[in-house]
Parts: sequence; structure tokens; C-alpha cells
Amino acid sequence: MESRVQFLSSAQNAYLKMLKSLQSKKGRRDNGLFLVEGSRLVQEVCAPWQMDALVMTEMYYELNEDWKKLVQAYPQAKVLVVPEELFKSIADTQHPQGILAAVRMKEFGLEVLVEKENPFLILLEDLQDPGNGGTILRTADAAGADGILCSKGTVDFYSPKTVRASMGSIFHLPVVQADDFEQAMTWLQSRGVRILAAHLQGSKPHFEADFTGGCGIMIGNEGNGLSDKAADAADERVRIPQPGRAESLNASVAAGILIYEALRQRTGGNEKC
Amino acid sequence: MESRVQFLSSAQNAYLKMLKSLQSKKGRRDNGLFLVEGSRLVQEVCAPWQMDALVMTEMYYELNEDWKKLVQAYPQAKVLVVPEELFKSIADTQHPQGILAAVRMKEFGLEVLVEKENPFLILLEDLQDPGNGGTILRTADAAGADGILCSKGTVDFYSPKTVRASMGSIFHLPVVQADDFEQAMTWLQSRGVRILAAHLQGSKPHFEADFTGGCGIMIGNEGNGLSDKAADAADERVRIPQPGRAESLNASVAAGILIYEALRQRTGGNEKC
Repeated sequence: MESRVQFLSSAQNAYLKMLKSLQSKKGRRDNGLFLVEGSRLVQEVCAPWQMDALVMTEMYYELNEDWKKLVQAYPQAKVLVVPEELFKSIADTQHPQGILAAVRMKEFGLEVLVEKENPFLILLEDLQDPGNGGTILRTADAAGADGILCSKGTVDFYSPKTVRASMGSIFHLPVVQADDFEQAMTWLQSRGVRILAAHLQGSKPHFEADFTGGCGIMIGNEGNGLSDKAADAADERVRIPQPGRAESLNASVAAGILIYEALRQRTGGNEKC
Repeated sequence: MESRVQFLSSAQNAYLKMLKSLQSKKGRRDNGLFLVEGSRLVQEVCAPWQMDALVMTEMYYELNEDWKKLVQAYPQAKVLVVPEELFKSIADTQHPQGILAAVRMKEFGLEVLVEKENPFLILLEDLQDPGNGGTILRTADAAGADGILCSKGTVDFYSPKTVRASMGSIFHLPVVQADDFEQAMTWLQSRGVRILAAHLQGSKPHFEADFTGGCGIMIGNEGNGLSDKAADAADERVRIPQPGRAESLNASVAAGILIYEALRQRTGGNEKC
């Protein structure tokens, strides 16, 4: 195993320069790779995801053992040990833990979202904040949702911040990016997915809507909500009641409320009450 | 009104030095003031909160009108115009909008939490992240909750980041800090508040628990959850089901899920379904 370890120290090394480029969306797209940072998160990488490289600082390599499992689990992965300063220039975090992985991106088609009967989906239109993107992915994963469809204008789920906020859920359920969001909605609807849009002018409180059966919960942009086009294309608009004085909810929180109302109904909570 | 405007340009000015100190908890405690930053947030300040000073950059003062209402609404407030660099040294945000207010802190006693019949409360034990603190406050406000009780180790709700994440909700409902958290729990329980603790080992799914009547939803620390002491003192432990693969939920999302399950039950959603 040790024989696979390469010690690199030149900032001019072509592969290390490529790794640096993965902080940008263009760099990720050009190379088909994204960064997974931190000792906990690299352990979350799992099949069918492929690790292209495992990168450590000299100190991490010397003081830790947990990377050895990963080296065994990914026999094709490069194993690179680099000086701390060089590591910092690759990592997105300000105080990196000394280990990161470059993982191959996957592109999912719409079909993957309807593989199961009565799929449970989340649709995101132009959600902007990487933290919200990752947190919604994590919540959807916890609730056992089947996947996420997002519009072209939605935050890149492979950005380091989103991957971090997802706490590893990026490896658990597919995020499908739609070139044409409304067309993808129509396609899902033709496969029996009812789309429920979170909307301040929704016709009924969310807990009076029906989330059983094939169902897609749609959330819009943090500042502007959903476009009229997307809201009109939904099967139903639901409103999260706000009897208090705050004017709106955080997008991740709104998604969490709807996802868990759906889970309640889908697991029979509705009948039991 | 214009006569109240003072133009200050010395970084040695004692009041401006005091304002700078409000970025730290100690500075806020020593002076009894906290910072409210940004054009939208300063408009959220409302009675009975008192503004001690309204501070603007020269450019904001010249190009905007919205501050004039505030100057009228708070006749006791100092109105200070300072050069941009000086303003930046006071503000917590990296790209400040050019307006902030120093607002007088308020200390609330436990009594304020049980003023209404069947109060709807949130209890936070050692919640650490300022963003989570503000977001939970915002969600509680949206749902019409009556107040928040927090342990001594919980994030300072008057920190600039928490105030920002609350989107103004800091002015809408009381946050009470308990010197002795378990004692405060007992006191609330003696006033008819049932405390439901969010717990991974909860005895039942949250949607099978009863959130009607006087009710307190308790959330713990992001990394460690609730202490055994606090969890044991609760009337019931509830578990947010996680049938999927994520191991936990973000604290703001978990709070949002429980707060809205409570709202559903408290507004009759339980009977209607």
C-alpha cells in the first residue's frame, strides 16, 4: 500500500494545479472531479462514487491511520502527500484538516428519479446558497427521499461548501440538473409525480395538502421565491402558515418542514393521529 | 431633524470606540448595547426596543432617505455620519451596506414566557452556531411561538451574526437566558409547560407526541445533542424519524420540523387530517 504513496512538493505539478482548479465550477466541469474535504467527509465517499486522488499533508500522513482504509477501498486512487502550504492552496476551507479527496462527478438522467414506485422528490428552482443546497440534500437524505431535481440556475451541488453542508448526503441520493426545468417538471408529472410548490400565496396550509403517492416538493430562490412559470406548472401551491410576525422562513427550514410533513403522511402518521 | 446629525471623523472618538467594542460579547455586556446592521434590519427595530445611535456612511447619508423615518421614530437616538473606513471598522459584516444601529439590550425574566395561557416555547441547550440561533428564532417567530429559553452556554443572541440570521425576529419575541437551565425547566413545568426533547433515542416519532397545551420544544448542541441531565428532566423524548441514510439533521432544520408539527397540532391540523 505504501508503495502507492507519492510525495509531491512542487506547486508546478500539473495534477496539483488541476486540483486547485476544482474550487471553481469551470475547473470541476473541465476535469469531471470535485473536492471532498475533511477527515469525516472523505470517509463518507462510497460506491459507486470513484476517488481519483486522496491528498494529505505530511503531518496528516504521519499522525493518522484512517486514510489507509481508503487507500485499500479505492485501488485506482492516487495517494498524494504534500507540504502544508501546498495543501492549503488546494483546499477550500480556511483551516483544512489535512486530508481531502478528488472524487469523480456523476451525471444523472431524469429516469433515476422515477425508478421507485411513488417517488418522493425535491425540486429546487434557482436556490442560491451553497449551505442551503447542502442542508436540503441532507434533510432529503434523512427522510429517505429518492432524489433532487434542480434548475440550471441552482447552486452547484459539487461546490465544496455544498458538499460540506450535505455532510456526505451528496453520495447517497441523486441530484439531477435539468436543462429545461419546466420540461422536466412536465416529464415527472407524466410519470405520476404530483408537484407541490411552496408558495406564500398557496391555496391551503401545507398540512392540508396530500403528499402521499408520487410527490415532488418544490422550493424556490431564497430572495424571490418561485418564478410564476414554475409555480403555475405545479399541481398545487401550498403555504406554510406563518401566524407570527416573521415574514418568511429560511429556505432550508421551509424545505425541512415540507419534507417532514410528507414523511409523516407517507409513513401513516396521518392515519394514526 | 437635520440638526441632530453629527459628522464624526476621528477614530479616537470615545463613542465610536465604544461602538467598535460591540462586536464582542464583553463589549455588549459592558455597554448594554448591540449592533443591528443593514438597511433592511435597522427598519425592523421597533418599540419597546430603544435605539441609542443610528450610524451611517457619508455616502449612505447623501443617497438615501429611509433613515429619516428612523430619526423621527427614535428622538433620543444619536445620528452619526462617519467616513466609510471608520464605518467598516465598526460593522461586523465584510461588505456593510452603510447603515447600522446601536440598540439597547433587554433582559427578560422567566415570567415573560408564561404570560399567555398554554405557552408555545423553544428551549435551547448549548446551541453553538450563531446562524442556527438566529434561524431558530426566525422560525419560532413565524410560527407564532411565545419565546425562547436558552442555557448559559448557548450562542449569544445579541451577536451580530445571530441578529442578522434572525431577520429582525430578535425584536419580536423574548429570548430568556437561564443561569440554571434545569431549574428554569422545572419552573416552567410547574407552570404547566410540558417539555418535549428532540433526541435520537426518543421513545416515539415526533408526530405521535402531543404538542398541544403548554409546550416547550427542546433542542441541544449541534455536535453533542442534549446533555443527559436536560434530556432526563424533559417530560418526553421525541425522535425525528430518519429512515434514510443521513445520520442527523441540521439543528435549525430539526427545530423547524418540531415547531411546525406543534403548530399543525395546535391549529387543529390534527383533527382535520
